[in-house]
Amino acid sequence: MGSISNGIPSWEERAEDKRRRILSQVPAAFIHKELTHTLEHSASVQEVPSKYLSPLELEITALDAVALVSGVVSRRYTSVQVLNAFTHRAAIAHQLLNCCLDFPYHAALGRAKELDQILDGTGKTVGPLHGLPISVKDQCRLIGTETTCGFIYPLGQLDTDDAVIVKILKDAGTVIFAKTSLSIGCMWGETVNNILGRACNPYNRTFSCGGSSGGEGALVGFHGSPIGIGSDLGGSIRSPSAYQGLYGLRPTSGRIPYYRMLNSMEGQETIQSVVGPMATSAEAIELFTRTIVEAQPWMQDPGCVPISWNQTTLESFSSSRKLRIGVFEWDGICLPQPPIRNALKTVTKALKAAGHEIVPWKIDTKRAVELVLRVFRADSASDIHRQCAKSGEPPMESACDSPEPPKSLIEAWDLSMECKDFRAAVLRQWNETARDGLPPMDAYFAPVNPAVAPRHGDYSKVRYFAYTASVNILDYSACTLPVGFVDPKVDLADDSSLTVDAAGNALPPPTCERDESIRKRYDPAIYAGLPVTLQIVGRKYEEEKVIGIVKMITELLKST
Amino acid sequence: MGSISNGIPSWEERAEDKRRRILSQVPAAFIHKELTHTLEHSASVQEVPSKYLSPLELEITALDAVALVSGVVSRRYTSVQVLNAFTHRAAIAHQLLNCCLDFPYHAALGRAKELDQILDGTGKTVGPLHGLPISVKDQCRLIGTETTCGFIYPLGQLDTDDAVIVKILKDAGTVIFAKTSLSIGCMWGETVNNILGRACNPYNRTFSCGGSSGGEGALVGFHGSPIGIGSDLGGSIRSPSAYQGLYGLRPTSGRIPYYRMLNSMEGQETIQSVVGPMATSAEAIELFTRTIVEAQPWMQDPGCVPISWNQTTLESFSSSRKLRIGVFEWDGICLPQPPIRNALKTVTKALKAAGHEIVPWKIDTKRAVELVLRVFRADSASDIHRQCAKSGEPPMESACDSPEPPKSLIEAWDLSMECKDFRAAVLRQWNETARDGLPPMDAYFAPVNPAVAPRHGDYSKVRYFAYTASVNILDYSACTLPVGFVDPKVDLADDSSLTVDAAGNALPPPTCERDESIRKRYDPAIYAGLPVTLQIVGRKYEEEKVIGIVKMITELLKST
Repeated sequence: MGSISNGIPSWEERAEDKRRRILSQVPAAFIHKELTHTLEHSASVQEVPSKYLSPLELEITALDAVALVSGVVSRRYTSVQVLNAFTHRAAIAHQLLNCCLDFPYHAALGRAKELDQILDGTGKTVGPLHGLPISVKDQCRLIGTETTCGFIYPLGQLDTDDAVIVKILKDAGTVIFAKTSLSIGCMWGETVNNILGRACNPYNRTFSCGGSSGGEGALVGFHGSPIGIGSDLGGSIRSPSAYQGLYGLRPTSGRIPYYRMLNSMEGQETIQSVVGPMATSAEAIELFTRTIVEAQPWMQDPGCVPISWNQTTLESFSSSRKLRIGVFEWDGICLPQPPIRNALKTVTKALKAAGHEIVPWKIDTKRAVELVLRVFRADSASDIHRQCAKSGEPPMESACDSPEPPKSLIEAWDLSMECKDFRAAVLRQWNETARDGLPPMDAYFAPVNPAVAPRHGDYSKVRYFAYTASVNILDYSACTLPVGFVDPKVDLADDSSLTVDAAGNALPPPTCERDESIRKRYDPAIYAGLPVTLQIVGRKYEEEKVIGIVKMITELLKST
Repeated sequence: MGSISNGIPSWEERAEDKRRRILSQVPAAFIHKELTHTLEHSASVQEVPSKYLSPLELEITALDAVALVSGVVSRRYTSVQVLNAFTHRAAIAHQLLNCCLDFPYHAALGRAKELDQILDGTGKTVGPLHGLPISVKDQCRLIGTETTCGFIYPLGQLDTDDAVIVKILKDAGTVIFAKTSLSIGCMWGETVNNILGRACNPYNRTFSCGGSSGGEGALVGFHGSPIGIGSDLGGSIRSPSAYQGLYGLRPTSGRIPYYRMLNSMEGQETIQSVVGPMATSAEAIELFTRTIVEAQPWMQDPGCVPISWNQTTLESFSSSRKLRIGVFEWDGICLPQPPIRNALKTVTKALKAAGHEIVPWKIDTKRAVELVLRVFRADSASDIHRQCAKSGEPPMESACDSPEPPKSLIEAWDLSMECKDFRAAVLRQWNETARDGLPPMDAYFAPVNPAVAPRHGDYSKVRYFAYTASVNILDYSACTLPVGFVDPKVDLADDSSLTVDAAGNALPPPTCERDESIRKRYDPAIYAGLPVTLQIVGRKYEEEKVIGIVKMITELLKST
């Protein structure tokens, strides 16, 4: 506990000590005292690294995970060079965005050196991710580090075992070099906890990077890491991926190993948190997911399902095969802001132009959200409270806060049955998209959230997780699809009446206060330059299909 | 409700009414008034049908499911003939063994006629199970029937929708002709409920047919049905299969669809009840399971996992490929009775002689049982009590009875995490059976229960579900393997000291009262002729492997 020795340290002292230690292993040359974290400056910080990084570091950190592995394997770069480039950029990210909880640099450097020696000595790689630096949400147990899940109580306890996903990544040749911040207990859509406070968005620091995997979102979105691991219970991978314009995969539970990840509400099985990658390219998502699945995680994690990787499926969907794709434009409750609506139109147009069929699609999100919130609030936040009580830290606002008392076990069981019926109803609905001898739709695309991103202070006004959480209760596979950036010249505001868009088309009138609030808050001048992202959603265990479609649409969008 | 019209009928009246109605649709010629149910006569009733059935009926009911389908498809028999033969034999079974809750004969006959017409008219079959009569545990919702799960309250309510498994079976061409008795709420190892009372074993009516799928066990064991559907939460398919010398498959959850089955403790997700077939041959198990999986149940049941059927895997394990097979001889707590120990030796010897390697294996069943009982008792039987309260019937003894109050939700979540850790520990242990460059063991074989079967009145003295329930908490795939019958000349009793077997070999001294009680109760004269059955256990989702190994060993045993 460093300098604190007289008596038991307060939670504030433990947090302060942790903050002091975050960058303590990072080479001094990567720390630039003039860089400071703020929630107030709206200018993008994406150009800051160009002032501090060497040309080689800039070259390396511009690459995606696939190019990095190939760069190391082809000996264009050493693992150590790659690690240092990303550590430097990540240290800048942390100084600007307050997004990291740990830089285990000594261990990372040791591993990078070892990987270089092995490649030099044998000409062979350790695995398919040889030399790839990777960041992990601070839920991933990593030997020799603290894993907090955003709580104070684990500070000072070093992990003695790796999460299964970490173990597989180590075996695959990655260099785990940063652990990223998250919302307390992973139960909030902004990244804020009592250790670090609030993280922010590299495109505009007056906006949140999202949550709960927002530290990953900010870091990868800043190219401070080529690929990171997040987790998703209600949208926690996809929201930060959306706000930072990243590819983020929410797999079906059991496809990617979760065992020995730390979480809140552990043991809640009705809607399961899942772990997945967030990266700067769809190819990186593909490489990561293939690597994990081909490592047969079911041989290490009893919760994993032995479904082998199917590259043929992925390639069939990334090819020119004609698809039937659903479009989920809005759920009848909260209308997406204009840039999201425009992105939906752009993708619809590109798909149609390429000969794909567009199928209207809508999920009963009212019911989905009602069920999801009942599940999240089943314990009335009592688990979060007991984790906070271990250190005395104050609980923060969370999605499990509830005015109701905790459910009895039997009430929770009944709720689980209601969720099953909801899943069966949507399955039937999906099957019913078959028509005229054509099979049901292959997948659908949808907003991630109706708001482009939440401004600090605005979150409670734009918070609406129906488009993401409906995927969680269904346990579908989903991947985000960056479409572009808010262009104030194109993404015009709706009329102030909120019933007519900028082009004069009638809009459905606001259905509720939240809907109105989300619409009102969109301001092209303020939102300018923020990423605009959608999601592609497949059925259960259709990760290959979903990644394939994301690649296919990404290519289409490039050529339009 | 038949004759009951003045006021609300009591639960006893509702039960009596139901009992009167069970055989009401069955042709009068199949009912033989002189046959009565008793728990007291020890003589096998297996020869009774030969006195009542026609030669054709005897010929048909001697066949397994595979031969029956091929008999119908080749037009050797009509579907109607096959249905009538089994209905006649099943009616006799019910009169002797008290094992059925419904004979929906009108619907079954209509379907059988329709199947015959289709085959006659088009030369085509409806599906891979064309014309196969099948019985289902009275948990399976079947349109137009009552589904009780052993409770009184559902009496009088007719199902308006089929369970997914039923729907798939109908589409595959089966004729569902009987619904079988079960323990109340599926939570007891004997088949007893307030509707019917107690069912018994066709090999010796002073013995139980087991439970909870004991009605299926008795009916299929009597050849009153070629194949039936049971469910298994702690051994409920495997115990009755063992006691009646049947092949019974407990698949991993999500392989065979459970949606719209009725159960108690619905929504409990830590250890999941699964549905599976019980049949007179391993080939029937194979045909059934392949048919269900090839129907892509994940397109109808959101709880199913899209793992395709792998016939190649099955055939590779049923072939002469050399395996490493674990033997779980005893768990250090309750020693199996001599016939089970002899069966383990017989199989070990046959496998060794065929060149397979035998690997010693043991699961920490003490921990497994402790966890399983905590899960089963988590609600302190409150769900069973509320189901009973709906009709006023008295609750019966059940595995969820507990002196402790119901767990809080958060306690149940903590327990779920303990179960995950247990699964991970056994997974590690399994992986550690790899040695000298050889892969881990392929599967293991084990007793189903330490007792050959429970006599009526004895169950509380021989009840010990560690060998089965350890498979449930692990969610492994398992199939029973009939090995033979108790031969009083071969399966000699241990010395009365219980520390030396009949051959003079030292036995581990009894570890507890239950262990002693199980050993003491074995009496060759009383147990003579009862089936002796083991189980083969594979990892999760290894149904093809497990069925393949069962077939292989069955062949080995035939040739020795």
